[in-house]
Amino acid sequence: MEFQEPKVIGSPLMYSNRVTLKTILESSDGEMVLVGETVVVGGWVKSSKEVKKHPVTLPPCAFDTDHASPGRQGLTCLEILESRIPCFRTIIRILCGPASSPAVREKLESLVPKPTPPSTFFLQINDGSCASCLQIVIDSTIAPVSAGQILPTGTCILAQGVLEKLSANEKQIIQLKAEKILHVGTVEQDKYPLSRTRLPLDSLREYPHIRPRTTMVSSITRIRSTLDFATHTFFQKYGFRHVQVPIITATDTEGFSEKFQVTTLLGKTSKEEEPVGVSDADVVSLETVKAAIKEKSGVVEQFKRSDSNRESLIVAVQDLQKTNELARQIEAREKSKPVTSVKPDSLNFNDDFFGRPSYLTVSGRFHLESYACAIGNVYSFGPRFQADKTVSSKHVAEMWTVEVEMAFSQLGDAMKCAEDYFKFLCKWMLDNCPEEMKFVSKRIDKTITHRLEYMTISSYDKISYREAVEILRKVPDKAFETQLQWGVPLTAEHLSYLADDHYKRPVIIYDYPKAVKPFYVRLNEDGQTVAAFELVVPKIGTVITGNQNEERFNVLNTRITEFDLSRDQYEWYLDLRRHGTVKHSGFSLRFDLMVLLTTGLIDVRDVIPFPRSHGKANS
Amino acid sequence: MEFQEPKVIGSPLMYSNRVTLKTILESSDGEMVLVGETVVVGGWVKSSKEVKKHPVTLPPCAFDTDHASPGRQGLTCLEILESRIPCFRTIIRILCGPASSPAVREKLESLVPKPTPPSTFFLQINDGSCASCLQIVIDSTIAPVSAGQILPTGTCILAQGVLEKLSANEKQIIQLKAEKILHVGTVEQDKYPLSRTRLPLDSLREYPHIRPRTTMVSSITRIRSTLDFATHTFFQKYGFRHVQVPIITATDTEGFSEKFQVTTLLGKTSKEEEPVGVSDADVVSLETVKAAIKEKSGVVEQFKRSDSNRESLIVAVQDLQKTNELARQIEAREKSKPVTSVKPDSLNFNDDFFGRPSYLTVSGRFHLESYACAIGNVYSFGPRFQADKTVSSKHVAEMWTVEVEMAFSQLGDAMKCAEDYFKFLCKWMLDNCPEEMKFVSKRIDKTITHRLEYMTISSYDKISYREAVEILRKVPDKAFETQLQWGVPLTAEHLSYLADDHYKRPVIIYDYPKAVKPFYVRLNEDGQTVAAFELVVPKIGTVITGNQNEERFNVLNTRITEFDLSRDQYEWYLDLRRHGTVKHSGFSLRFDLMVLLTTGLIDVRDVIPFPRSHGKANS
Repeated sequence: MEFQEPKVIGSPLMYSNRVTLKTILESSDGEMVLVGETVVVGGWVKSSKEVKKHPVTLPPCAFDTDHASPGRQGLTCLEILESRIPCFRTIIRILCGPASSPAVREKLESLVPKPTPPSTFFLQINDGSCASCLQIVIDSTIAPVSAGQILPTGTCILAQGVLEKLSANEKQIIQLKAEKILHVGTVEQDKYPLSRTRLPLDSLREYPHIRPRTTMVSSITRIRSTLDFATHTFFQKYGFRHVQVPIITATDTEGFSEKFQVTTLLGKTSKEEEPVGVSDADVVSLETVKAAIKEKSGVVEQFKRSDSNRESLIVAVQDLQKTNELARQIEAREKSKPVTSVKPDSLNFNDDFFGRPSYLTVSGRFHLESYACAIGNVYSFGPRFQADKTVSSKHVAEMWTVEVEMAFSQLGDAMKCAEDYFKFLCKWMLDNCPEEMKFVSKRIDKTITHRLEYMTISSYDKISYREAVEILRKVPDKAFETQLQWGVPLTAEHLSYLADDHYKRPVIIYDYPKAVKPFYVRLNEDGQTVAAFELVVPKIGTVITGNQNEERFNVLNTRITEFDLSRDQYEWYLDLRRHGTVKHSGFSLRFDLMVLLTTGLIDVRDVIPFPRSHGKANS
Repeated sequence: MEFQEPKVIGSPLMYSNRVTLKTILESSDGEMVLVGETVVVGGWVKSSKEVKKHPVTLPPCAFDTDHASPGRQGLTCLEILESRIPCFRTIIRILCGPASSPAVREKLESLVPKPTPPSTFFLQINDGSCASCLQIVIDSTIAPVSAGQILPTGTCILAQGVLEKLSANEKQIIQLKAEKILHVGTVEQDKYPLSRTRLPLDSLREYPHIRPRTTMVSSITRIRSTLDFATHTFFQKYGFRHVQVPIITATDTEGFSEKFQVTTLLGKTSKEEEPVGVSDADVVSLETVKAAIKEKSGVVEQFKRSDSNRESLIVAVQDLQKTNELARQIEAREKSKPVTSVKPDSLNFNDDFFGRPSYLTVSGRFHLESYACAIGNVYSFGPRFQADKTVSSKHVAEMWTVEVEMAFSQLGDAMKCAEDYFKFLCKWMLDNCPEEMKFVSKRIDKTITHRLEYMTISSYDKISYREAVEILRKVPDKAFETQLQWGVPLTAEHLSYLADDHYKRPVIIYDYPKAVKPFYVRLNEDGQTVAAFELVVPKIGTVITGNQNEERFNVLNTRITEFDLSRDQYEWYLDLRRHGTVKHSGFSLRFDLMVLLTTGLIDVRDVIPFPRSHGKANS
C-alpha cells in the first residue's frame, strides 16, 4: 500500500532545541503535558509590557550596617547597589561643598551610574506554528539588553525557562518563566513596518517579506499548507499518481488565453552592467569574439564541474555573458543594417534558448491526458499562468491549480470525484485545523465553520445547463443583466442566484451548450451540448471546472476545424485518439479560490501572500 | 494533529467501473482475493497471440442430418456454418458447370463468406497502475472487431470477465476470461511508434506523448509520484509548512545563474495571424486604435464575467489582441523613426506585463527565508529554472527541487534534517514500492534494493572540507585532474573518490572555504570558512546542498559588498536581519537526482519523462 501511519509531531521540535508554541498550547490530548518542564521557546514579540517592581524600601541614608533589617529579603546585589546610589550622590555633594563649581560636581556625579529600577517584562511571543501567543515573563535583571531593546514588537526572543500553569481567571492558561535568554534579535523601531499594531494589511504591500509575520498572513499560510497536503493525501489514497507538469511549454491549451513568453533574448537588457562592451562592438570582429567565447566557455565548464567554486564561477560566467552579449550586439548590428524598425518581430528565435517561442503553461490537463492514456489516474498540483491583464485586473498571473485526469472514466465519474475531493478538503480543515478555524471565525467570518460543515454533509444537486436556465427564467422578482435564453453563458449573477439563493449550497451544472466550452470537451449524442460540468459554491462561484474529453478521433478532428485551431499543433493530441483511444475525463480546481473559501476572505485580496492573489470567481 | 490514517486503495477503483491491475495482481494481503469474481479491467495491449482452435472434424460434405455425430459437441452455430462453407462452394461449382465463365463463378463464390476459423486471443494488457501485465483470454467469437484490430500492441481494451487462478506451472498466476468486450481502441499500426517491441527509448524523443506507455517511463512516473508524496509526508509529519514559492520573480538569488525572462512583449511574434493589420498601421492613427481597444476591452470584460462563453471570448480576445498589437506596431513605428538598430534594449519594459523585467525563479530559498523568519519551519517543492545552456548541456532548464528553511536552527540541525529526510525517502521506496523496485532491479540495476537498504541503516560520516582535502591528498596511486590545496573546489572526481571508494556510502562534507559558497552562507568564527554542507552520494554525487544562513546584519552587509551585488536588490533581505533576526538554516534537494538514484538510471537521461531531464551531479 502507498501509506504509512504518520505520527503526531513530537514535543520538542526535531531540528532545533526549541519547542514550538503549537506543541505547548495545542497538545493533542488537550492537557498541558509540558507544565513544570524546562523548555526552550523562540518567537517574535507581538505585544509586551514592563511592570516596575515595588521600589525597595530603605531607611534614610545612613551608613547602617544592620543587614538583618526587614524589607531587604531576597534583594539582588544590583538592587542593593542601586538603593545606595542616593548616598553616593550625597557624599559627592558634601565633599565638593556648595562652593565647588556645578561643572565639577556634574563630572563627579556622572561617574555614578544612573539608577535603573528593577522591573519585569511580560512578552507575548508567537513563533508562527499556531495563531496563539505564549506569555514569557522575564526579570529585567537576567535580560542581556535594555527594556528598549527587548520590548518592541517584532523583537526575536529565544529563551529557556519553566512552563507554569496559570490560575483559571488569567487570560492565558500557561506561561514561561524565563531563566536564561539565549538570543535577542532587536528591531529598528522607526523602520519596522509592523511597529504600529493592527495596521491595515494593504499598507504592507511594499513589505511582502514582512507580511508573513502578521497573524493573518501566517494563518492563511498554515491553512494553504494544510489544504495542500489534504490534496495529495486524497489523490494518493485513491491511487492517483502525481505528475509534475512542465511549466515551460510550446503548446497552447485553451487556444485563447494570453500567454507569458519565456526567453533569454532580452536577458541582458535588464542589467546595468550590460552596456559594457557596446562601444567595442565596432572595432572587434565577430570571429575574434566567437573564438573568445569558445575559450571562455571552456573555463566556465571547468569551474562548473563542481557545484562549489561559485565565486570564480560568478566571474567566469559574467565574463562569458558579456562576451556573448558583445557577439550578439555585433551580429545584431550586422543584421540591422537594412532594418529600420524595432518591432520585436525582428528577434530571431533560433537564437533563443529553446530555438523556438516558448511559453509558461496555461493548463496542465493536455500533458496529464498523455499520462492518463498510459498509467490511468493522474493528478498534478502546480502553478499555471495567464497574462490576461487587459482582460481583467482580478485575473492573476500565477495561479496554483489542481488538475486531474482519469482513464476509463466518463462525465459522471469526474463529477463524483470532484464532489468527493471538494468535500474531503472541507472535512479535512475541520478535523485538522480547529485552532486556525477558530481564528478565522473570530477575525474574518463567524459562519465559516458552520458553512464548511454544511458542505461536507449535504449532497449536492446536479442539474443540466437546460434545467439551470429554466430555473433562472422562472425567477419572478429578479431582472438579470444578461437576458437568458438557451445557449447564452451563465454569468456570475446567474451562478450566484443558483448557489446562494435557490439551492443555498454547492450545485453541479453539467451538459453545457457546445459553443461555450473548449474544443476538447466530449460532444453529447444530441450534437448540441457537451459533457462539461462546473461545481458552483455559494459566495465564491465556480471552484471546479471539469469535463469528459472527446475520445473519438473523427469528432475531435472536426471540432479542431470548427475552432479554427492549427492542426500541426494538435497532431500529438490527435495521436492519443489515433492509437488505443480510451474514454477519459478530468477536472481542475482553482486552489486560490479554495483558500479563500476556507479562510472566508472572499474579497480581501491583499492578505494573500505575495505574489499570490486570488482569481475571483468567474473573472 | 495534521494526520489521518489513510486506508488502502479499495478494490474497484472509485471513479470508474474497472478494477486496476495493481489491485488484482498486488493485493496487499498477498492472496488473490478477487479470484472467481466478475470484474471489469481496462488497459493497453503489450503483447498478444492468436491460437487457432482445433479444426472442426466433419465427414466429407454430404447433406447428412446426423446431428448427434461425435466431434460436434459444443459447436457454435458460426462454427457449424463455417464448416458447411465448402459444401456451398461445391453446389455453386455444380450449378454453374465447367462451361460457365470463371468470372461468373468468382462473382457467385464471392457471395459466400470466406471462412474465418474460430480462434482464441491471448492479450497481455497493462493499465499503468503497476509494472506487471494481466492476461486476458478472448474467444474470437465474442470479439466485436477482427483479430487484426484487437491484437496489435497499443490497442486499448476494456473487458468484463471472470478472474481465474492458473496452475502453478504457468508463467502467470491469474488471468481474466473475457465474457464481454466493452471497448476497443484500435491502433494505426504503421504510424504507432511502439509497434516495434523493445525499441530504444531515445528513439521516442519525438513522441513524448506516447513515451508514458512504455513500462520504463511509466515505472519512473510511479516512482517519482511515490517520492513526491514521501516528501510531503516527511515534512508535514515534522510540522513543516509547505509554502508555494512564486515562479515569476524580480529578484536574483544566486547572483550568477543565467535566468529565463518572462515577458508579454514578444507574445505576438510567434503567431501566424499576427502580421494581420501591419499594413493598416500606416493609415490608422494611434488615437483611433486606442479608442477601439477601450471599446473592445469592454466587450471582452462582459464575456469574461462568465468562465463559460469561451468561443465568443476567443473571438473577442483575439480581436482585442490584434488591435493591441496594431497599436503596439504604430507606437513602435513612431518610436523607431530615429532608431536604426534592432537591439532588444529598445524594448520598453514599462509596456511589459509587470512593468519591469521579470524572470523565472532560480531558487526559492530566499522567499522561504522570509517565511521561516515568521512561521518557523517551512519547505517548498516545485520547479526551478536555469538557462545555463552555454555552461553545460547536462544542466536542465526546469528542475524540481525540494527546499527547506528552519528558524532557530543551525548547521548541525540542517545536516541532521537533510540526512533524516534522505534516509526517509530511501526507506519509503523500499516499504511502499516493492514491485517497482523489483522491476528496476530486473531491468536497470540489480544492486538497487541492496543499495537503498544500506543507505537507510548506515550512519553517514560527517567530515569538514579540510578533512576531505587531507584524505584526498593522502591518496597514493591516484592523480586527480585538479591539483588539490586548501581553497580549491572539490570536483566530481574528488567527491566520487570520497563517496564511492573511501567511505563507500553517503558522506556529509561541511565548513567550506568562504570563496566557494554564496554570500548568504554564515561565516564561521575562523573568518575563512562558512557553515555550508553537501550530502554526497555514491554514483550520483551531491544530492543535497545546505547551509546556515548569515543572520548578523553587519556580516551579511559586508559579504554583499564583497560579492559586489546590488544593495538595492537585497535591502529586503537585509531587513530580515535588521528586524528581529534569528539563527536559521536550510538546504535543497535536487529531486531529479533522487529519482535517478532510486531508479538506478544514473546515466540514462532519455528515459526521464519529457521535458524533465536529469541535471547530472556537479555539472
